[in-house]
Amino acid sequence: MPLSRRLLFRWELPEDFVVTPWDVKGQVDYDRLVTQFGTQRLTPDLLEQIRKIAGELHPMLRRGVFYSHRDLDWILREYGKGNRFALYTGRGPSSGIHIGHMLPWFFAKWLQEKFRAALYFQITDDEKFLFKDFDKLEEATKVGYDNILDIIAMGFDPKLTRIFLDTEYIRHLYPIAVEVAKRITFSTTQAVFGFENSNNIGEIFYTSIQAAPAFLPTAEAGHEVPILIPCGIDQDPHFRIARDVAPKLGYPKPALIHNKLLPSLLGPTGKMSASIPESSIFTTDTEAQAQKKIMNAFTGGRATVEEQRRLGANPYICSIFAQYNYIFEPDDRHLAEVERTCKNGERLCGDCKTELWGKVRTWLKAHHAAREKAKDRIDQFMLHD
Amino acid sequence: MPLSRRLLFRWELPEDFVVTPWDVKGQVDYDRLVTQFGTQRLTPDLLEQIRKIAGELHPMLRRGVFYSHRDLDWILREYGKGNRFALYTGRGPSSGIHIGHMLPWFFAKWLQEKFRAALYFQITDDEKFLFKDFDKLEEATKVGYDNILDIIAMGFDPKLTRIFLDTEYIRHLYPIAVEVAKRITFSTTQAVFGFENSNNIGEIFYTSIQAAPAFLPTAEAGHEVPILIPCGIDQDPHFRIARDVAPKLGYPKPALIHNKLLPSLLGPTGKMSASIPESSIFTTDTEAQAQKKIMNAFTGGRATVEEQRRLGANPYICSIFAQYNYIFEPDDRHLAEVERTCKNGERLCGDCKTELWGKVRTWLKAHHAAREKAKDRIDQFMLHD
Repeated sequence: MPLSRRLLFRWELPEDFVVTPWDVKGQVDYDRLVTQFGTQRLTPDLLEQIRKIAGELHPMLRRGVFYSHRDLDWILREYGKGNRFALYTGRGPSSGIHIGHMLPWFFAKWLQEKFRAALYFQITDDEKFLFKDFDKLEEATKVGYDNILDIIAMGFDPKLTRIFLDTEYIRHLYPIAVEVAKRITFSTTQAVFGFENSNNIGEIFYTSIQAAPAFLPTAEAGHEVPILIPCGIDQDPHFRIARDVAPKLGYPKPALIHNKLLPSLLGPTGKMSASIPESSIFTTDTEAQAQKKIMNAFTGGRATVEEQRRLGANPYICSIFAQYNYIFEPDDRHLAEVERTCKNGERLCGDCKTELWGKVRTWLKAHHAAREKAKDRIDQFMLHD
Repeated sequence: MPLSRRLLFRWELPEDFVVTPWDVKGQVDYDRLVTQFGTQRLTPDLLEQIRKIAGELHPMLRRGVFYSHRDLDWILREYGKGNRFALYTGRGPSSGIHIGHMLPWFFAKWLQEKFRAALYFQITDDEKFLFKDFDKLEEATKVGYDNILDIIAMGFDPKLTRIFLDTEYIRHLYPIAVEVAKRITFSTTQAVFGFENSNNIGEIFYTSIQAAPAFLPTAEAGHEVPILIPCGIDQDPHFRIARDVAPKLGYPKPALIHNKLLPSLLGPTGKMSASIPESSIFTTDTEAQAQKKIMNAFTGGRATVEEQRRLGANPYICSIFAQYNYIFEPDDRHLAEVERTCKNGERLCGDCKTELWGKVRTWLKAHHAAREKAKDRIDQFMLHD
């Protein structure tokens, strides 16, 4: 799903921040992104509709981590009529999966449970080879299989989850990709991705392959299957082409629901990056590595303990508080308590880090164990051809 | 294999004739094409090597219909060392297959028999859809299946023949196409095919899919399998990209052997065209249609019978004589007799037409019958996935 940094598309925003599918710089103004990208905010009314169906709201919905969408209202209307949607997400193989990558996966899992939604999970080994992350295609495929262990370890329902690699499942993707490709000119890819004449013809074609899974469920079912794509707001541009082309091909436009980006453990000025190990917890971190990252993480604390006790700290710039808020503290009351005691100086950064490490260690242990077990479960999830 | 007319590549030759993969205009100077394209002539030495192995020379070799090549010497050297080559040819689905299209197929069949060569036969349904010959991909696929009946009716050895449609066999083609695509920039496709920014991204990518079968046998065998592509000289430009890229990917360059183009029944100024039914015999012609085309064909005859008896006629501009020479008269002695008696006025155009029609009718009847039987034989030849 994440196209490479080598795509030169720039969605430059005025002044102080930049958000593109491969680059997020500066403090992100998420409100401004909604305007700039032309998406919709999740409204209280939409949240209430979700709560009615699901019986509850996921913490990431309650807290506005998922905060923006395209056509989610239509998805819910169709669901109300008995037309269940399918989820689509993806992964460009790389050796580092961090919890920032996993935000949409956690959320997809919840949606799958609550809405009994089928999940199509695309592993884009072709993309990562074409965009030069790998010298050999087999290497991308191999790393893709390693990433699949993390996906299975998430606990998706094997009956409702279809994981596939582009190179293996291409028989099903290619006919749709060819339909998409016929409607996209090189000029369009220049405008959307900033391609130049020196781009290779695989890079140029690739967006067709990325669009295909959004149309596959409808093509296979022979009737309109609504598709919902949970993804970081930075990934939105990729799906504009798919949405533009959909009506011309007789497919419904894929809907999107966008999350804010998990802040880096190194501070508030960037998102997590697979190329900076200290910026996030990775699924393959040892306990010692993960603990060290948390203990060294950027916080909103004061220069001295004495000062912090007296003046309190700032949770809103704190990467540790963000971990609680986004993922590791589902209990709103306890989160509010952390917030309150941080601000009034009762709680010190060390307290928060120690407590968070306890939660992360529990999760990491469980994930490592599930990842091991996943090695014997691959066939339950994979569409090989 | 034949890319569409919409490819704008122009290999313009000075003065009076033009030869491109989709356009042949004027009297073709085949000698000049060898120089212009940078191919090699088939030498007596090469022909003698073929004769030694095959025990004979195919009439199209004896008569210089196949007259040019790239790396055929290497193909024969490898064969001498026990490294058998495979043949690769293809067909862009269209409703009209004429005997001009079939020249390389007749020759491939002979090579298959004499050299026990595997034949890979690509049906490019994706291409014909992308280049707008069809509005729906399924239509291209359907016509592809109809064309396969003609291919099977040729009498290829099912044990040595693998026919596949791009959309069905893509699982095997795509990983190789992706390797090829990574080495080709948009600039290169501009230079070779004249693509512009308004071309669709499927057209731009397509040459990768066309190159893939040339590398597939090597990829599957895990060792160098030489590939020989028999094709009209006008198709040569398509394989330059495949030949350029091959060494970078560790594959042998595909070799080529080129035929001259069967002259149109309408006269010496164009090749046969699927869009002009009168220009050639089509495999699905009724006997009445075929007979009429032959009886109306352009010849080298004189204005009156009296004049022709006295001055003789010109077989070298005669489309009927070309049919004998290229395909329907394997016996050199009889061909020489036709030539002699044409030139000295003993034989009139009506004689030649009647005699040719006898041969064509026999062939057409046999082909129609084989085409009917082919409907039950498809599975013997097809690689479906």
